[in-house]
Amino acid sequence: MDIEQQSLFRAFREYRWDEVTCQPYKEEGAAPFKAISRQVLFAEPQLGCELRYFEMAAGGYSTLERHEHMHAVMILRGHGRCLVGQAVRTVKPFDLVSIPSWTWHQFRATEGEPLGFLCMVNALRDRPQLPTEQEVAALKAIPAVAAFLEG
Amino acid sequence: MDIEQQSLFRAFREYRWDEVTCQPYKEEGAAPFKAISRQVLFAEPQLGCELRYFEMAAGGYSTLERHEHMHAVMILRGHGRCLVGQAVRTVKPFDLVSIPSWTWHQFRATEGEPLGFLCMVNALRDRPQLPTEQEVAALKAIPAVAAFLEG
Repeated sequence: MDIEQQSLFRAFREYRWDEVTCQPYKEEGAAPFKAISRQVLFAEPQLGCELRYFEMAAGGYSTLERHEHMHAVMILRGHGRCLVGQAVRTVKPFDLVSIPSWTWHQFRATEGEPLGFLCMVNALRDRPQLPTEQEVAALKAIPAVAAFLEG
Repeated sequence: MDIEQQSLFRAFREYRWDEVTCQPYKEEGAAPFKAISRQVLFAEPQLGCELRYFEMAAGGYSTLERHEHMHAVMILRGHGRCLVGQAVRTVKPFDLVSIPSWTWHQFRATEGEPLGFLCMVNALRDRPQLPTEQEVAALKAIPAVAAFLEG
């Protein structure tokens, strides 16, 4: 296989891809999260977006956050739940989830099963914002959201 | 389920999505292709890219074409082969394929099985170019490419 061909075709093995590094989700201590990894599948200078694959181990979760940029998500592996704004839903493979601007969101894998998803996002984007204590309290005033956030 | 929630979560059933229309691949007669459909999963004005799902029935194929914009592809369903430049490869679920600018490309489903893939592409992009007879002849001078193009 020559170099050109390697860059054109990257094979898949158990939710890992050749030439794609499995990276930490975020810098340790930057924000609360648990048992989640990040693989950047496509990030070409010619493309306006990147395509990333995130995977949480059983019981893992992403950071509760919001930002101006939106996310376009497709679940690929396993089951879990996600919070988008004030709505909590269960998700399964191939479900689509839109996360609009400035909307609190978090993904959680169910116990006993990892949750993996693709996330398309603008290459140029703002940094996420974490909730204040008051904002967490406001979210927890909604019983379904409180149950979700408490795992 | 209220309207806001409907737009955030779209469920999947057998490679079809709620609120996503299964469209013709291209206008009939615009270019050669066979047994292929297109579903636009995400095309938000805020995103620099669109995410589409293309599916070919068994033995179907996409148009042999090239263009300035690039494609970032992930196979989702079934098996087939693809031509990228002068390289022909078999593809299986979750394989990644990059299609660089101005590179001839075509996907073909194997006999007996559909082939479905995600394709991320810039929202603003040029129109595809079809090969001239001379360009097809030059591609067919490569035995593996000739075998691919002849199905």
